Amino acid sequence: MNATFATWRDHFERLRANKLFETAVIAIILLSALLIGAKTYEETTRFEQWLLVLDTAITVFFLVEILIRMAAEKRLRDFFRQGWNVFDFLIVMASLVPLDNSDMVLLARLLRIFRVLRLVSLIPELRVLMAALVKSIPRMGYVALLMFIIFYIYAAVGSFLFADIDDFLWGNITAALLTLFRVATFEDWTDVMYATQEAYAWSWLYYLTFIFLTAFIFLNMMIGIVLDVMQKESVQIEIENGEGEAAELHGLRDDVRRLSDQLERMEATLAARENAPRG
Amino acid sequence: MNATFATWRDHFERLRANKLFETAVIAIILLSALLIGAKTYEETTRFEQWLLVLDTAITVFFLVEILIRMAAEKRLRDFFRQGWNVFDFLIVMASLVPLDNSDMVLLARLLRIFRVLRLVSLIPELRVLMAALVKSIPRMGYVALLMFIIFYIYAAVGSFLFADIDDFLWGNITAALLTLFRVATFEDWTDVMYATQEAYAWSWLYYLTFIFLTAFIFLNMMIGIVLDVMQKESVQIEIENGEGEAAELHGLRDDVRRLSDQLERMEATLAARENAPRG
Amino acid sequence: MNATFATWRDHFERLRANKLFETAVIAIILLSALLIGAKTYEETTRFEQWLLVLDTAITVFFLVEILIRMAAEKRLRDFFRQGWNVFDFLIVMASLVPLDNSDMVLLARLLRIFRVLRLVSLIPELRVLMAALVKSIPRMGYVALLMFIIFYIYAAVGSFLFADIDDFLWGNITAALLTLFRVATFEDWTDVMYATQEAYAWSWLYYLTFIFLTAFIFLNMMIGIVLDVMQKESVQIEIENGEGEAAELHGLRDDVRRLSDQLERMEATLAARENAPRG
Amino acid sequence: MNATFATWRDHFERLRANKLFETAVIAIILLSALLIGAKTYEETTRFEQWLLVLDTAITVFFLVEILIRMAAEKRLRDFFRQGWNVFDFLIVMASLVPLDNSDMVLLARLLRIFRVLRLVSLIPELRVLMAALVKSIPRMGYVALLMFIIFYIYAAVGSFLFADIDDFLWGNITAALLTLFRVATFEDWTDVMYATQEAYAWSWLYYLTFIFLTAFIFLNMMIGIVLDVMQKESVQIEIENGEGEAAELHGLRDDVRRLSDQLERMEATLAARENAPRG
Repeated sequence: MNATFATWRDHFERLRANKLFETAVIAIILLSALLIGAKTYEETTRFEQWLLVLDTAITVFFLVEILIRMAAEKRLRDFFRQGWNVFDFLIVMASLVPLDNSDMVLLARLLRIFRVLRLVSLIPELRVLMAALVKSIPRMGYVALLMFIIFYIYAAVGSFLFADIDDFLWGNITAALLTLFRVATFEDWTDVMYATQEAYAWSWLYYLTFIFLTAFIFLNMMIGIVLDVMQKESVQIEIENGEGEAAELHGLRDDVRRLSDQLERMEATLAARENAPRG
Repeated sequence: MNATFATWRDHFERLRANKLFETAVIAIILLSALLIGAKTYEETTRFEQWLLVLDTAITVFFLVEILIRMAAEKRLRDFFRQGWNVFDFLIVMASLVPLDNSDMVLLARLLRIFRVLRLVSLIPELRVLMAALVKSIPRMGYVALLMFIIFYIYAAVGSFLFADIDDFLWGNITAALLTLFRVATFEDWTDVMYATQEAYAWSWLYYLTFIFLTAFIFLNMMIGIVLDVMQKESVQIEIENGEGEAAELHGLRDDVRRLSDQLERMEATLAARENAPRG
Repeated sequence: MNATFATWRDHFERLRANKLFETAVIAIILLSALLIGAKTYEETTRFEQWLLVLDTAITVFFLVEILIRMAAEKRLRDFFRQGWNVFDFLIVMASLVPLDNSDMVLLARLLRIFRVLRLVSLIPELRVLMAALVKSIPRMGYVALLMFIIFYIYAAVGSFLFADIDDFLWGNITAALLTLFRVATFEDWTDVMYATQEAYAWSWLYYLTFIFLTAFIFLNMMIGIVLDVMQKESVQIEIENGEGEAAELHGLRDDVRRLSDQLERMEATLAARENAPRG
Repeated sequence: MNATFATWRDHFERLRANKLFETAVIAIILLSALLIGAKTYEETTRFEQWLLVLDTAITVFFLVEILIRMAAEKRLRDFFRQGWNVFDFLIVMASLVPLDNSDMVLLARLLRIFRVLRLVSLIPELRVLMAALVKSIPRMGYVALLMFIIFYIYAAVGSFLFADIDDFLWGNITAALLTLFRVATFEDWTDVMYATQEAYAWSWLYYLTFIFLTAFIFLNMMIGIVLDVMQKESVQIEIENGEGEAAELHGLRDDVRRLSDQLERMEATLAARENAPRG
């Protein structure tokens, strides 16, 4: 039976590596995406039956596809070791929630949307892009923390001072944080300011300092990230180029010094011969 | 007759290369642009007759100009091999749609507008700029795809959840995509949010994650493009500078090593002589 | 008694350096921040008593913490020499304003908010970030001055011309400056323009030139800062790498020249011997 | 009399170079700026008399100051050769328009505002900044032209199609250009779009392509300028560092090759001696 399984696994491995199979998967994902889009049009109700059948077919296809990829691995543990496999597995499992149960129908629909994300795990260029994005998250972490501290302080001040003026905008710290995010995106921020200026004439100071601080930190963050990425890039280029120009230069200088020592020895030999009594 | 044609082609070639002729073409394009602008003013109706005559004159001039450029080529195929010639040809052909036919008058007018684009094909600096812009399209492709996937998922979710709240903004996936583009440009996005927050209090999470994701990816895209352009630039500079500093350094080191070998040989010769019995 | 004090100072020094103590301080700051946030919710009035007790506890804790850090220093002057210590000291002192006095209660509450800023002085990464931000202030100074001059001139012109159209927006130079800042953030700037265009049809020129000037200067400022930071960065890298590649190259060339001199001397010696009469 | 004049010129030259005199000029400019600001407040009418006296005093001071600077030059032509002097001269002349003539009072006031610009010509750092800004204008020229062509084409199309929908926004090409600039700044652009979408459902395509084109070109322009500035900067650094690293490396390699030739000659000499019959 083990031999039979091995034969099957070989079949699956060949199928997984097949270019046509990959294209079929991408086509099915795009069809699935179009299906989701189609469902948002009201006229689709009369095609409801067809859409349900199509959805079931796609769900089954994805389930079979992931089972094939699991079977193609030597051990099941190997499958789950790769982040993208876990990512695919979760998306496929999530879309198994049945559509016909009226309680769960909204959730089932929402979960099916995430199938589109499988495009990211299938197209290598998008995977590279995603990896680069994920890598840049930590270096944004502390700046985000600094920004949040500023938002929090301004939100607390705003909430204390302006709560009576507009309860919806400044009623509590959550509302104030959301209002400040609105101000940071410049979205009708003057309306917010003009309202508070009636009670506190100097409140333009509150908004202007906030805008300058957030813009200033954001600008510095952007520059910082650009520089950070550049430095890493240039270090990598240096590694690829062997040992880097600086190391090369240093080695070269050592070589030249060794040459000089050699010449000095030769000069000494010559001088010694010159001074030696002739035979 | 062939000889006559060759003489004519020489005439045309000289005319095409003539600086005055080029200036005339640019002047006519600017006049054509002004004419288009003038037509948008209602007072122009009384000059209608004049404008029509002027338009016909410009159309004929452009037709003659492109025929001259065609005749100036050795073979007609050579003319269509250059992208900019095809570009000019299409623009001139498009403006041949007559203005007097009432059915096509709007289309004819619209097509005449594109004559202004001929400025791009005539001014060399703009051609260089355009070529640079076109070259940067592919490297933006995959980021645009990733961004579209995010837009699509959010649009599907938004359309499922918020369709009952505002049919115009969230009625179907096309409307939702347009609404999300509006949110991405920060244009009255809080109005959209406040409306959905009444039904789903937590919906600020939907907007904030969307804004962060799109801003984050856009930022990374920008940085990526800057770095990409820079790397290509520096590679080109390296190629122009001969073989690049790294190669130069490597060659230099090889030279120094060969010197060292030479010195060793000489030292050996000297030592051999020293030890040899004097004559 | 001096000996007893020294023993105590040792105790304090060890406590200050204790990782657990630092974590406790951060935890207390976060609790204090949450407390401030909680106070903005109206339901907190019934927990008022508890919050007051908690606030007093935190205030006392911070006071004790800063006294410990003061005692840990050899001399009190050393404590105030470090900018961050002064920063912490001012924040702790400010939060000593009692909460129960109804006159000062708002001020006391506001001052307590700044406790969150102590996170910045406690987390080393944020301190580095803050230092970088502060360092970039001077190089923004002159650009800010130039920008202010442009704002001032436009505000004066706007205030002279448009004061009768909208007293709130253009009534005096302060109002006009604020309105121009609004225009610079693109916030409903067309509403402002359309209003003035009714009286002065050409006033779009005023807004467009203002937007172009500020955007242009801002863009140049950004690029200038990026380049400035980069240059400083690369100089620092050069310093870290020893003497820099350029210096290294220069030194190398001197070495090679010295080699050449040595060889010439040797060649001269050989030639002299050749020409010398054989013994 | 010539001698007397020379003595006077020396006096003036010393005065112009005097630090105190420069500070006084800056102080007067700031006072003049404050005066302009003060005039925008209505309460100033009762100080009108004082302000008028002060204004006259400042005007006279500036006139005297520029006459001193003119007298300090050897020849009057030398004075007008420097751009900043012409700049100052025009500003001072413009503020000579009397304030009491009711016809010209508005113009006179406006012209007095430009006195603030003299800060730019007085503070060296601002002069450097201004020179850098002016230098970056040409490289922005062709991109601005390309952008204007796109604006013009879209404005013509918009004006033809949407003129009947909203005469104020799309009535003629000037209005359409202004509306498109509004769309490019994202200022209530959806209101403009929703209005035209009622007549032409597909008109979102018009706005989206326009936004993408302008954003795309603007982005490329920004990157292009950054790269352009950087390249010039690095070339300048190379020039300052002597001849540049590449040249240095090339020279070094030539030196090493000359060494090699020298050694070969020496080796040949040695070999010749070896083979020569012993004396």
